Amino acid sequence: MSTVTILGAGAMGSALATPLVARGHAVRLWGTWLDDHLLDAVEAGHPHPRTGVRVPAGVEPVRSGDLDRALDGADLVVLATSSEGVEAVITRAAPAIARIGVLAVTSKGLLPDASGDVQILPTFIRGLFEAAGLEAPAIVAVGGPCKANEVAAGRPTATVYGSTDLEVARRVGRLAQTDAYRIEPTADVVGLEVSAPLKNVYAIALGYADGLAERTGEPWHDLKAAVFAQAVREMAAIAEALGGSSATVFGLAGTGDLEVTGLSGRNRIYGARIGAGETPADALTAMRAAEQTVEGAAAIVGARSLAGRLFDDAATRLPLLHAIDAVLDGHADPLRALTEAALPEAIRP
Amino acid sequence: MSTVTILGAGAMGSALATPLVARGHAVRLWGTWLDDHLLDAVEAGHPHPRTGVRVPAGVEPVRSGDLDRALDGADLVVLATSSEGVEAVITRAAPAIARIGVLAVTSKGLLPDASGDVQILPTFIRGLFEAAGLEAPAIVAVGGPCKANEVAAGRPTATVYGSTDLEVARRVGRLAQTDAYRIEPTADVVGLEVSAPLKNVYAIALGYADGLAERTGEPWHDLKAAVFAQAVREMAAIAEALGGSSATVFGLAGTGDLEVTGLSGRNRIYGARIGAGETPADALTAMRAAEQTVEGAAAIVGARSLAGRLFDDAATRLPLLHAIDAVLDGHADPLRALTEAALPEAIRP
Repeated sequence: MSTVTILGAGAMGSALATPLVARGHAVRLWGTWLDDHLLDAVEAGHPHPRTGVRVPAGVEPVRSGDLDRALDGADLVVLATSSEGVEAVITRAAPAIARIGVLAVTSKGLLPDASGDVQILPTFIRGLFEAAGLEAPAIVAVGGPCKANEVAAGRPTATVYGSTDLEVARRVGRLAQTDAYRIEPTADVVGLEVSAPLKNVYAIALGYADGLAERTGEPWHDLKAAVFAQAVREMAAIAEALGGSSATVFGLAGTGDLEVTGLSGRNRIYGARIGAGETPADALTAMRAAEQTVEGAAAIVGARSLAGRLFDDAATRLPLLHAIDAVLDGHADPLRALTEAALPEAIRP
Repeated sequence: MSTVTILGAGAMGSALATPLVARGHAVRLWGTWLDDHLLDAVEAGHPHPRTGVRVPAGVEPVRSGDLDRALDGADLVVLATSSEGVEAVITRAAPAIARIGVLAVTSKGLLPDASGDVQILPTFIRGLFEAAGLEAPAIVAVGGPCKANEVAAGRPTATVYGSTDLEVARRVGRLAQTDAYRIEPTADVVGLEVSAPLKNVYAIALGYADGLAERTGEPWHDLKAAVFAQAVREMAAIAEALGGSSATVFGLAGTGDLEVTGLSGRNRIYGARIGAGETPADALTAMRAAEQTVEGAAAIVGARSLAGRLFDDAATRLPLLHAIDAVLDGHADPLRALTEAALPEAIRP
């Protein structure tokens, strides 16, 4: 059995303790400087505030000041901070991680490099190691339709582990898998990494359709289905333009994750508020007041930048992304924008 | 403008009158011998009993005894009966349809031929013409995520028209399309036709996951997402084995239609009753008592037969189809069966 150090004691970090402890690993849960209240709850034996599930017995909570101790002798490190926290945490942990040589990453996002170009998170992380003059570890991206509270509760979950070296993804996957937490390995890191933030963006559009239903008292299921299919199509186009595979998008990582994000989650709720008639600004204020982070509202900035770099005619190639953006900017009506973007073009003579 | 005869005055037949009348066509709505009460409502100016929407003014209702008059001088015939009604209606209408030369078909199903082999509906229909010594018309299969009540109400809908001759699909699509009812033409009739009945079968499994949530009071979203992705994968495998394209399944016809069927519809409700703890027999009895036809419960017979013909190892290749079947047969627990079927296999050394 191994020693696994999870960096970040939020929802997904704490949730992964469930399968890892079930497999008999020694698990250390290190909290960032923002996670003290979360570790307080863990130490008191209370349910984790973000998942509602008690962290399994045997997990060792480690406070932010004790990062070196958390990493000392670890066989595997799992990075599970928010995307905003990645740079600060990796910068501090890089020497130890470089020695260990492998890093699993549940954090997700499209982050700008020094030149402002948007990149997927593994590329960004490798850049941090290189900037520090260290050899980057093998990175295993963790994605797919995976709600932290369900992983924490041990409910059945299919997740995807991706590494450019498939054998590394398989090796780390074997270490973490249980009967309930099953892992599909892939070498298509690009398809996996673009799906994760993009599905948060496209879930906003699924929310617009739900909001129309709330506002009118009638279902708009045909429109929602068209939006779903168009979202998958656009995610596949982006993955392929970046050198990834559309097959990844058509599987668990894209279609599967969009399905669960469209069922529940804050991005969909944010979109539904707007579809029901709130202004985007009012909807975001209300979500923030309820301490509901809308990841898609942040991710669309990176998605827009990425789309513009990949396609000269991004608005034509990715009409749904453009429509989501136009609605959020207050320039378009959700119903009209979705109808234009998600329905097939008229058949011309 | 053309004269369009719709055969079958049920939900989808009456719904298509909305875009066709909007385009200025003369529309005749012929009811089968089972549709008299539906035409009574249409003639009285009441909402159609199946869609809740009034059929647009100008539609000419034609009673079952006047089939010849309904077809006389028509430029296009749309077949919109239940799959059980196809043989009887086509047998009577075949000479007139053969003269017209083109037939659009919204009916869906996997039907056995004389030797008991299951086939897609266009093949079945062509066989009826050949058996009558008539030249079969060009057939345009109509599918995709398309709720009759929403089409009838003129809400935005993306549908797929498929014909082996793409130009025929485009020609019929041009005739029917409106701003709200948009059509994607395809030459992949096989992918389109297998998606339609199979999505009804796989929606039962999405229902199982919803039923678990009802029973336990906790979400099983990760499992539902895994089921969704596995359903798409199996539909694609079946389409390809029959010579169709997985791209059709990954688009509106498969993924899009499964999404809308998993949101609403009787197949999902039937599955949810079983997932919540009812026996399959009790669930079906309750649905029938409420006059709720469960298309998926019938379609699984054809799907099972088709799977057995296509794959020697159907249970291994299509584990989710096998699981749905085993649960309906009372041989398996929904949670255990879905977990086995939809989660990735364990990664072995």
